[in-house]
Amino acid sequence: MSTKNNVEARKLKGFRDFLPKQAKLRLQIISEVNRQAVIFGFTPVQTPSLEYADVLLGSGGQETDKEVYRFSDHGKRDVALRFDLTVPFARFITENFNELKMPFKRVQVGEVWRGEKPQKGRYRQFCQADFDIVGVDSYAADIEVIQILAACIEQLLPSSFTISLNDRSVLTGLIENILKNDSKELENKVLIAIDKLDKIGENKVSKMITDLGFKEPNVLSLLETLTTSDPKTLKEKLVTHLGETHPGLEKLYNIYRTLNEVTNPEKCHIKISPSTARGLGYYTGVVFETTIDALPGFGSIASGGRYNDLVARFGKHDLSGVGGSIGVDRLLAALEELKVTPAKESTSVYLAVVDEAARDYAFKLANELRQYGISIHLNVKPSKLAQQFKHADHLGCEYVAMVGEEEFNKGTLSIKRMKDGEEKHHIELAEAKNLQKIFS
Amino acid sequence: MSTKNNVEARKLKGFRDFLPKQAKLRLQIISEVNRQAVIFGFTPVQTPSLEYADVLLGSGGQETDKEVYRFSDHGKRDVALRFDLTVPFARFITENFNELKMPFKRVQVGEVWRGEKPQKGRYRQFCQADFDIVGVDSYAADIEVIQILAACIEQLLPSSFTISLNDRSVLTGLIENILKNDSKELENKVLIAIDKLDKIGENKVSKMITDLGFKEPNVLSLLETLTTSDPKTLKEKLVTHLGETHPGLEKLYNIYRTLNEVTNPEKCHIKISPSTARGLGYYTGVVFETTIDALPGFGSIASGGRYNDLVARFGKHDLSGVGGSIGVDRLLAALEELKVTPAKESTSVYLAVVDEAARDYAFKLANELRQYGISIHLNVKPSKLAQQFKHADHLGCEYVAMVGEEEFNKGTLSIKRMKDGEEKHHIELAEAKNLQKIFS
Repeated sequence: MSTKNNVEARKLKGFRDFLPKQAKLRLQIISEVNRQAVIFGFTPVQTPSLEYADVLLGSGGQETDKEVYRFSDHGKRDVALRFDLTVPFARFITENFNELKMPFKRVQVGEVWRGEKPQKGRYRQFCQADFDIVGVDSYAADIEVIQILAACIEQLLPSSFTISLNDRSVLTGLIENILKNDSKELENKVLIAIDKLDKIGENKVSKMITDLGFKEPNVLSLLETLTTSDPKTLKEKLVTHLGETHPGLEKLYNIYRTLNEVTNPEKCHIKISPSTARGLGYYTGVVFETTIDALPGFGSIASGGRYNDLVARFGKHDLSGVGGSIGVDRLLAALEELKVTPAKESTSVYLAVVDEAARDYAFKLANELRQYGISIHLNVKPSKLAQQFKHADHLGCEYVAMVGEEEFNKGTLSIKRMKDGEEKHHIELAEAKNLQKIFS
Repeated sequence: MSTKNNVEARKLKGFRDFLPKQAKLRLQIISEVNRQAVIFGFTPVQTPSLEYADVLLGSGGQETDKEVYRFSDHGKRDVALRFDLTVPFARFITENFNELKMPFKRVQVGEVWRGEKPQKGRYRQFCQADFDIVGVDSYAADIEVIQILAACIEQLLPSSFTISLNDRSVLTGLIENILKNDSKELENKVLIAIDKLDKIGENKVSKMITDLGFKEPNVLSLLETLTTSDPKTLKEKLVTHLGETHPGLEKLYNIYRTLNEVTNPEKCHIKISPSTARGLGYYTGVVFETTIDALPGFGSIASGGRYNDLVARFGKHDLSGVGGSIGVDRLLAALEELKVTPAKESTSVYLAVVDEAARDYAFKLANELRQYGISIHLNVKPSKLAQQFKHADHLGCEYVAMVGEEEFNKGTLSIKRMKDGEEKHHIELAEAKNLQKIFS
């Protein structure tokens, strides 16, 4: 190794390290995602971080394209780091179609990269946990994807959260019927304006839409409908404007009804939100996003929707799908803001080596105790006992087990409970596996 | 979304997708690594995939530098994808030094990228699971790192494996004493030759070293020592050439002795292997690699060593460390070659919806059964029962639960056991949570 002392140890702007507590909490989120995936029968798959640029680009909208990390590799190939897990999954499905049986329920947890302007809590690399069901266009699939997201969040979040539901056809139907619009181009512009409702408010959105040439009373009527909060009144208005038998509306309320039955009403609130658009991306049916009730300005931690032509760009297949994504690092940031600490994983014992003559004995002891699933932090640096206690305290260990010459000779260990300083001397190994009992 | 049908769905050369079975097995490896980390008291951390190029380059040897994915980002920064987890960890330690308490035991599982020539079983992106202990230079730390690697592999691998141990000072001591060499430059060249022993054999290595100007009898004596397989004879020869009190030799045998006591002798074989060099990289003390006894030509699945000046290049601290890395994808490939299939995660039930009128009832049922940890694959595509059975079979579900109008009306479900076709009709939900009992 060439030792040069002139390199500055620094992270790239917009990137982050995860220190122990954060990294533990993050692992617990990912572990819960994988646990729910098993319970819900979602199958894991993985795809590479790098793809041919043309596989990724042009699928997530121009905004996303600009943010993609794109470069020329060793073989002069035009490559890019994935900016989400959905587009590579569409490539995966197309390429591995014959290996998979439809409908296919998939879970994938992975890192994605976007060269966005760094903001508080927004980084250029972040982790997503995606659930998708492809090969079927049914409201049952829509429900299951939203339900598994809710199940994960219910387990992880100490507070309640709200899933805002919409169907793209409901929103475009309202634009068409209330604004008397039949131009696709204008519709997109109206969608862009509506997407800003939360950020810039009703008045500015109203002006944006009126400036497109729509009549003010119609614009006001549209915005009044979109911002109706009472569920009953909202349903009446939607039925008035779209008709009883509007397929998107019917599906939306089916999803709403069933989700209310299969989620925990104390933690998970379901809301019909006709203004939710989720950008201009690839969504064609239901769309949804999830906000934390206790953190109003925090933004969405999980979102998704139905995309009925995602793999069409690869020309081979015609597959419907619905997908939802938990922003693992967004959720982590929320948990940190809510002062959630990592759950305790097992009883933790610092094994202090009082006398180096007992070093080998300590190794054997650690080995035995680990067989019982006890987390053993074995001292590996010969040092004074006081130092070792300090370290145990820093690590948050519940107990310190001590082995010196006497313990070694007797084949025992001595243990101190950290919370009250109570000590037990010369415990037999067979007893030591149940520390709670010894100190009860 | 701009629907273009002209994009070819294709992976980059040297990259791979993980299909369901592989992805499951891979998750099980990672999950075992994280479980052992808790038991051994190793703390997780994470670092970004991208770093400033100068942070990474020049630390892993010239060979590695050439393979690094390096490019200019949106802000014209010279950046690179990490080629291992050790160098970014050195940056992490330096930058977060005040947040960490030494000695620090760290686990990190993550993807790394190297633009190597693709070969069978070698990809340009692969996953590593790293365990390191920094801030201490003790043989206890060396042992613990090797021991945790062995513990993970013991749990995952059905066959036995061998950990080959060496100390860099033993190998360089032999070169010095037997070849009468005192040139660092020549030593490196001899090391490069010795590193090729497994690949090109003794004769060619002997010629390479003799061609450097060393006397043939000395070269033969060196190679004879390096390739001695009987443990007793080997120890005698090492003591003869290096002396009883050679510190590296003493440490090596301490590690050897303790490892033999704390690993499972039926699965984990420990071997002193004085020719093991692990390249010219950053190792300064103990080095080790792990091979699978049942797969002789497969190569190492886990390796590492002591690096006593890894963070020195950042100029701020002087930290010793020892680290080991499991090649997660190498281990996965080995498990696949040994025909290991993913472990069963929980009882799996396909919930067939016989009649769409029972759809909502099926959702509620699925929800209840999932509370008991049963893996429920709910049908989400209205289809004939025969189709649903086919799907259940493809998914490998142990049971198919059926709900139709009658079950819905009675609040029950009917269940078929797939392995023998036995059926039970109109089971109460409370009973259904214990399927083994129903069918016993």
